Amino acid sequence: MAVANKESLRKRIYKIIFEAETPLGKAFDISLLVLILSSVTVVTLESVVELRRNYLTLFIALEWIFTIIFTIEYFLRIYSSPKPSKYIFSFFGIVDLLSIIPTYLSLIILGSQYFLVIRVLRLLRVARIFKLTRFINEGQVLSKALRASVTKIMVFLGVVLTVIVIVGSAMYIIEGAKSGFTSIPISIYWTIVTLTTVGYGDIAPQTPLGQILASFIMIMGYGIIAVPTGIVSVELAKTERDALALTKVCPNCHKEGHLPEASYCFNCGYHFKSFK
Amino acid sequence: MAVANKESLRKRIYKIIFEAETPLGKAFDISLLVLILSSVTVVTLESVVELRRNYLTLFIALEWIFTIIFTIEYFLRIYSSPKPSKYIFSFFGIVDLLSIIPTYLSLIILGSQYFLVIRVLRLLRVARIFKLTRFINEGQVLSKALRASVTKIMVFLGVVLTVIVIVGSAMYIIEGAKSGFTSIPISIYWTIVTLTTVGYGDIAPQTPLGQILASFIMIMGYGIIAVPTGIVSVELAKTERDALALTKVCPNCHKEGHLPEASYCFNCGYHFKSFK
Amino acid sequence: MAVANKESLRKRIYKIIFEAETPLGKAFDISLLVLILSSVTVVTLESVVELRRNYLTLFIALEWIFTIIFTIEYFLRIYSSPKPSKYIFSFFGIVDLLSIIPTYLSLIILGSQYFLVIRVLRLLRVARIFKLTRFINEGQVLSKALRASVTKIMVFLGVVLTVIVIVGSAMYIIEGAKSGFTSIPISIYWTIVTLTTVGYGDIAPQTPLGQILASFIMIMGYGIIAVPTGIVSVELAKTERDALALTKVCPNCHKEGHLPEASYCFNCGYHFKSFK
Amino acid sequence: MAVANKESLRKRIYKIIFEAETPLGKAFDISLLVLILSSVTVVTLESVVELRRNYLTLFIALEWIFTIIFTIEYFLRIYSSPKPSKYIFSFFGIVDLLSIIPTYLSLIILGSQYFLVIRVLRLLRVARIFKLTRFINEGQVLSKALRASVTKIMVFLGVVLTVIVIVGSAMYIIEGAKSGFTSIPISIYWTIVTLTTVGYGDIAPQTPLGQILASFIMIMGYGIIAVPTGIVSVELAKTERDALALTKVCPNCHKEGHLPEASYCFNCGYHFKSFK
Repeated sequence: MAVANKESLRKRIYKIIFEAETPLGKAFDISLLVLILSSVTVVTLESVVELRRNYLTLFIALEWIFTIIFTIEYFLRIYSSPKPSKYIFSFFGIVDLLSIIPTYLSLIILGSQYFLVIRVLRLLRVARIFKLTRFINEGQVLSKALRASVTKIMVFLGVVLTVIVIVGSAMYIIEGAKSGFTSIPISIYWTIVTLTTVGYGDIAPQTPLGQILASFIMIMGYGIIAVPTGIVSVELAKTERDALALTKVCPNCHKEGHLPEASYCFNCGYHFKSFK
Repeated sequence: MAVANKESLRKRIYKIIFEAETPLGKAFDISLLVLILSSVTVVTLESVVELRRNYLTLFIALEWIFTIIFTIEYFLRIYSSPKPSKYIFSFFGIVDLLSIIPTYLSLIILGSQYFLVIRVLRLLRVARIFKLTRFINEGQVLSKALRASVTKIMVFLGVVLTVIVIVGSAMYIIEGAKSGFTSIPISIYWTIVTLTTVGYGDIAPQTPLGQILASFIMIMGYGIIAVPTGIVSVELAKTERDALALTKVCPNCHKEGHLPEASYCFNCGYHFKSFK
Repeated sequence: MAVANKESLRKRIYKIIFEAETPLGKAFDISLLVLILSSVTVVTLESVVELRRNYLTLFIALEWIFTIIFTIEYFLRIYSSPKPSKYIFSFFGIVDLLSIIPTYLSLIILGSQYFLVIRVLRLLRVARIFKLTRFINEGQVLSKALRASVTKIMVFLGVVLTVIVIVGSAMYIIEGAKSGFTSIPISIYWTIVTLTTVGYGDIAPQTPLGQILASFIMIMGYGIIAVPTGIVSVELAKTERDALALTKVCPNCHKEGHLPEASYCFNCGYHFKSFK
Repeated sequence: MAVANKESLRKRIYKIIFEAETPLGKAFDISLLVLILSSVTVVTLESVVELRRNYLTLFIALEWIFTIIFTIEYFLRIYSSPKPSKYIFSFFGIVDLLSIIPTYLSLIILGSQYFLVIRVLRLLRVARIFKLTRFINEGQVLSKALRASVTKIMVFLGVVLTVIVIVGSAMYIIEGAKSGFTSIPISIYWTIVTLTTVGYGDIAPQTPLGQILASFIMIMGYGIIAVPTGIVSVELAKTERDALALTKVCPNCHKEGHLPEASYCFNCGYHFKSFK
């Protein structure tokens, strides 16, 4: 009896922590989201010099509170998992661990520089929000369309990066160190800044030839932004069409693409209800 | 008789103020648009120091003229509404009220700082122009497509914001205060400026590692702009196709929404060709 | 006989100048394009101080040569037109006249400031290149799709401009004159620079609240660029589909959308050649 | 026998160097890719002043190693080609030659300026990576869609460039040399920087009229980015649809390109359903 009870407790925890179908599970997910956002906000604000000076004790206290809550949550996840090792070595298992370790490490390692590196890892907690998207159906359509676009976008990016290297080197030759194009890597950096239409303006061409080449890159960058957009649009349209078309096939003429509310096949007039 | 007359006067005012089908109603809407744009222009120009110095009396006179006209209009709207309370607490009822209050408040509260805050509320008058869009059919198609896109775009924005927080923190660690990355919030602000390809240039990475990460963000920002564009394109195409489908109506059961190539009604199985 | 000859000379000139079907007409159009581009280049280079100092005589000589050629062309157009007055008052008739007048006016009016204003009008010659696009079929598909998109884009721009005015005023209140937001018009200008992702960086928010609002505008600007793109894509797809579908209709079952090379109707199997 | 052996050796080399079907051919292509990327990285890093000071001997040594490997490869390509002259004068034949010559030339010509020009030609080695894309099917779909879009995009660019010249000149008149608009070419450069939403900020309008015109250009640039995107999206959708249509082949006349919903072959009138 006791074993069965324990079993059901484990199952109940699993349902609350890992699933979101029950009211308790939903409440858990929402409070987790609030806790993560709060802890990230605390880490973020702690980096502001004026705030750190005045509220350091508060920040450290809050950090420890969040860390202890997330540590309990982490061990509950291990306890309630049917296969704990599978959870521990999964992507989110590692993320969960990495988002509690830095606070404990900050006790041992006191060097401020290392401390800063540790702090950014804590922000990976934010990644846990991703888990909420699996409940959103739209996320799946989006990621499916993006996965289908990946090959085309890689080919496109390869061509663009080659152009960037050649143009960056040309700008180094044309402009030289006087205009701030001090080396080819810096010139390549400038080309990326220009082609993507970011345009900081910390480095800008001064010679007429450099400005003509820069104009050419800008117009090109402005034009080729069309390519990934076109790729994603087409894939998204296909994914949506496939999702619709697959839902209903006429058992008489095998025509696809019926509206979800259709009672008769629009092609052969077959009555769908007479099939089942 | 008098009561009936009053009733019809109220109705006539309602038709002029709230509707745009009659010639008087159209004239009212156009003159309202002109008045709003003029009053916004006056508020805007008043903020220019040189102009305020020379034309302050003119500006104040014009502000009061506009406010009195809009006040009369506001009370006529309340008077002519079939259910005044419904109008008063509607979105545009509140906007109408907020666009006349500031001028009256400027008599009591003289502090210049508060006065400035009040001034911006006056600009909400512009929002009344939105009402004109309801007559434009295209506005509805657009807003329908945008509403259908909202979930997908929210998922997309969530992922993008997570990336922004992580990258912003990484830039803080890499660049540090010397390059202007004085805190994580400032670094996150810089990441948004870069990812959206705005690129002010007030803060720019100085270290090679920072510039490599910046290049990566720029190319990512340049590539993922495709995602919301693709989403909106697909939704807009769907909305337009649905609008087309509504034009084909079954002559037997009057059901709408048939595919352009349909031969049979999907609802009652009627053969379209047997009609004509 | 002489009258008939004159008549045919006029017609021949008309065919060369106004049409591009004959080899002479094509040669005329291409040489006109070269002349316009050369004359624009001369005007453009004349504005560079160093070049004007050294080559002023050459620039003036070239300007007069181009002007005389374009003047002869202008009178030949009037002479050869079936209805000269219709040509003179057409869009391109006015453009043609405006692109020769400035050089003659530069003889009378010597003030350099006026001279500069005149110079820019000469650049309108470039507009004549537009005439070449009418021969390109693609131009018509593009302009048709853009005309169909205009209403939707106007609604969209109206909403965007309203947001720009409200946000611009809010930034003026938040940032104030210290950060460069010296007046509401300047703040509106900054909002346009930011929302369109141009981002000069001459004005940039300094306060945390201003930077948060700026971040919000950037992400919004980055997201809503999707809307006009989606509109144009859908209209372009419709225009192309309509152009294809209208070319071929089955005379038996009236099904549209056949491939240009089709011999049989894909719907009823009717042989197209047996119709004619 | 010896001749036959030599023949087969040549064929074997051809299969390894020019093709990628065999395991050895694949290994060759991957190692070539690594070598090209390494050599480009070396050239790029050599331009950084601090690195050149410390590692010049290493850089020169690596350059010579890469050049010797690529020279051997170049002669193996000539040797193994069925028609060597065809390879030598092909695009990649010239690129292969240009990517080895500069190192040898650096022995004769010692002038640093010329040396820099030579260095950038070495980067054309990167273009060899393009050859790998022919194995990626997606690259063909992309380039087909882009080729189909080229005419429309040229028309669009022509109109945009005309607007740029007119607006650039207007900004020169309005702003003048004080704001940095020192000549029409510089103003045109600024217009391109603004219209493409790059926005360096090195030149920015100072007068109210100039800022109004600038705002207009920004909104226009922001809006018309939709046009090339729409063009590419539609062409990409068409290319993909055509690729699908090719999968349906008539079992009677083997004609390809049928619509997915076709019941009869549009070429021979064969009824598809009578086949199965």
